[in-house]
Amino acid sequence: MTRIDDLPIRDELRGKSPYGAPQLDVPVRLNTNENPYPLPEPLVRRIAERVTEAARRLNRYPDRDAVELRTELARYLSRTGGHEVTKDQVWAANGSNEIIQQLLQTFGGPGRTAIGFEPSYSMHALISRGTGTGWLSGPRTEDFTIDVGAAVAAIAEHRPDVVFICSPNNPTGTAVDADTVLALYEAAQTAKADSAGALVVVDEAYGEFSHRPSLLPLIEGRPNLVVSRTMSKAFGAAGLRLGYLAADPAVVDAVQLVRLPYHLSSVTQATALAALEHTDTLLKYVEQLKAERDRLVTELRAIGYEVTESDANFVQFGRFRSAPEVWQKILDRGVLVRDNGVPGWLRVTAGTPAENDAFLDAVRELKKEQSS
Amino acid sequence: MTRIDDLPIRDELRGKSPYGAPQLDVPVRLNTNENPYPLPEPLVRRIAERVTEAARRLNRYPDRDAVELRTELARYLSRTGGHEVTKDQVWAANGSNEIIQQLLQTFGGPGRTAIGFEPSYSMHALISRGTGTGWLSGPRTEDFTIDVGAAVAAIAEHRPDVVFICSPNNPTGTAVDADTVLALYEAAQTAKADSAGALVVVDEAYGEFSHRPSLLPLIEGRPNLVVSRTMSKAFGAAGLRLGYLAADPAVVDAVQLVRLPYHLSSVTQATALAALEHTDTLLKYVEQLKAERDRLVTELRAIGYEVTESDANFVQFGRFRSAPEVWQKILDRGVLVRDNGVPGWLRVTAGTPAENDAFLDAVRELKKEQSS
Repeated sequence: MTRIDDLPIRDELRGKSPYGAPQLDVPVRLNTNENPYPLPEPLVRRIAERVTEAARRLNRYPDRDAVELRTELARYLSRTGGHEVTKDQVWAANGSNEIIQQLLQTFGGPGRTAIGFEPSYSMHALISRGTGTGWLSGPRTEDFTIDVGAAVAAIAEHRPDVVFICSPNNPTGTAVDADTVLALYEAAQTAKADSAGALVVVDEAYGEFSHRPSLLPLIEGRPNLVVSRTMSKAFGAAGLRLGYLAADPAVVDAVQLVRLPYHLSSVTQATALAALEHTDTLLKYVEQLKAERDRLVTELRAIGYEVTESDANFVQFGRFRSAPEVWQKILDRGVLVRDNGVPGWLRVTAGTPAENDAFLDAVRELKKEQSS
Repeated sequence: MTRIDDLPIRDELRGKSPYGAPQLDVPVRLNTNENPYPLPEPLVRRIAERVTEAARRLNRYPDRDAVELRTELARYLSRTGGHEVTKDQVWAANGSNEIIQQLLQTFGGPGRTAIGFEPSYSMHALISRGTGTGWLSGPRTEDFTIDVGAAVAAIAEHRPDVVFICSPNNPTGTAVDADTVLALYEAAQTAKADSAGALVVVDEAYGEFSHRPSLLPLIEGRPNLVVSRTMSKAFGAAGLRLGYLAADPAVVDAVQLVRLPYHLSSVTQATALAALEHTDTLLKYVEQLKAERDRLVTELRAIGYEVTESDANFVQFGRFRSAPEVWQKILDRGVLVRDNGVPGWLRVTAGTPAENDAFLDAVRELKKEQSS
C-alpha cells in the first residue's frame, strides 16, 4: 500500500495531518460554532425555488462575477454594518476560508509574511502556510485581548505584508475596538512605508454576535483594510460555504487576478440569495443566541469557572490543569465541546437553550466531583 | 480612486488581467464548451428535492469528506471508465480548477515546476503560477499531437515535479493514447528518480466525448498518476462547479493536507448526487453532441477549412492569417466562438444542431467572401 510519504509531496507537508474538528456522533454538539437553529421552512422552500431556476440553466457557467449576490450582500452590509457599501466593494467566495486564501495569494505568498495575534483562528496560519506565506505569531495578553503597544512593536519589528485581526476572536470570543485596529493599521503602513503598505484583514466571521458595532466603517479611506465575513454563523448556513469581504473596489479588482474562474456555483449563488431575502428572520435567531451566549457566561461564572469575555456565539472557559481531560469528561456526559489547543481552556458553542442546559448540567457535575 | 497597482499586491501580479472568456450577449454562444442541453425537467425536480433536504440541515457544516458523493462518482467511473475504483480513490472539489489547485499545492509550489504541452488548457499554467509553481511550456507537433520523443526529452531536461497531459486536449481537441501517457510517466519518474518521482495529471475534462476509451485504467499500480474529471461538460453542469479526480488512495489522503476544510457545500453535494442519478439520460446527450462534433468536422472540411482531429465537444478550425479578425467577423454574424490565442486557429463548441447550423452558415458565408 502506498503511503502519503511515498508520494512526491512537498517536504513541508510531510508528517502533517489535515485540519478539522473530530466529527463524533454525540447527542449535543457544541464544538464547531454552528448555529443550532435550522433554517425556517419558508426559507427552505424559497431555496428550492431559486435553485430550481438555477438548475434549469445549470448547463451554462455561473455568473463569474456574482453580481446579483454581491449587490445583495452590499445591501445587507449597508443596512447592518453602519456603513454604506456598493457591490464594487464586495467580493464572495466558497467560505471565508477561500476569501482568505485569495487575499493571501494576492497580498501574501512566497517571500512575504502574515501575522496574527494568537490564539486566534487557526486557518489564518494554515492558509498562510498553504499559500507559501511565512507565518508570524503575534502576542495576546493573559486575558486574550490585544495589547496595542506589544502588537505595534511586533508589527514594527517583523514588517508583515498581511495583518490578521479576528474580531470577535476565535476561539477566545474577544472583540477588538476600532482604536486598536486603527493603531495596528497605521503601524503596518508605517512599517512597509517603502512599498505600497501592508494589507490588514479584519475577520468578522462572528461580527453579528458582538455587543459592539461592526468595524466595517473603517474601510472608508483605507484601501489596505479588508473586512471579511461569512454566512455560516449569523445566517445559519455553515453548509452553504459562503464567505465575503468588503473593501476598496481596488481590492476586489485585485483578487480577480488569482480567483479561479467561475469559482462560485450557480446553486451556491441561488441559495445565498434566498437566505438574504430572509435576513430579518435569521437576525432574530442571532438575538436569541446572543442572549444564550450571555447566559452561558453568567452561569459558568456562577458555577465557578473562569470565562473569557465573549462577543461571539461561543464561550471560552477554564482554567483546567488538563483541558483534554476535561474535554473527555464532558464528552462522556454526551456533550461535545472544542479543545482548540489553548492550554487550560475549552470552547463551547452557544446552542439551543436545551443544549446549553445539558452542557451546564455536565460541567456543574464536574465541578461538584472536583470539590467532593 | 485607488488602482490595483497602488495596493501591496505581489509584484508578479502587477499589470496582469483576470482569466476569462469575454461574456457577450450573442444569439449563439459556442465559446466556452458548455453543453447546450439544459438538464431534463425530472432531474431539475430531483435537484430541488435533494437541495430541500440539504437546506433543512444547512445550519450544519457539510460532510467534509463528501463520502456519499465520492461513492457515487466512483460508481460512475467504474461503470464508464473501464476500471473499477472505490470512493477512497476519488476526491471532489469546486470544479476541476480547484482539483488542479489542490494538486499543485501538494505536489508543486515554490521551488518546484510543472510542464504542459502547449497549446493546452491555459488554467494549468495559470494555476501553476498562482501556486508559485514554475511553469514549463512543453512542445506539440504541427498537428497538435504530442511527439513522444520530444516530450520525453523535455521532461528529461527540465525534471518537472508535475506533468499535465490534457486528453482530449483543450483547445485543440486532440486525444492522447495510453502508450504516450505511459512513456511520459516513465520519463517523469526516471527524471526524478532521486526523489519520490513526479506527479502526472491526465486531465480528462472532455473524456466522455472521446472516440477512445478513458485513460483511467492507467492509475492501477501507478501511485503518481492522477486522472482529473469534471461534471461541467458531459453532465451538462458547468454551473455546478464539480470537478473530481481518481488516483491511488494515498493521493486522496495527500490533498487533505491542503484542501480548505468543508470546501464543498451541502448544496453542491446534493445537486451533484441528483445529477449522478440521471447519468444515463445525460450520456445520451453526450452521444448527440459527439455526432454533432463529427458533423462539424466533416462540414468545416467540406467548406474548405483545416480542422484538427477532435475527441472533445469542440472543434479547432483554421487556418487564418488573423484569427482575431475572423473571430470578429463570425461574431458580426451573431455567433460567438473562441480565440484561444493559438495563432491561425479558432475553436467552436458543438452546440445544438440549430446552433451548429447557424455557425456553419456564418463560416460558409465568410469563405465565399474570401473567394469572391
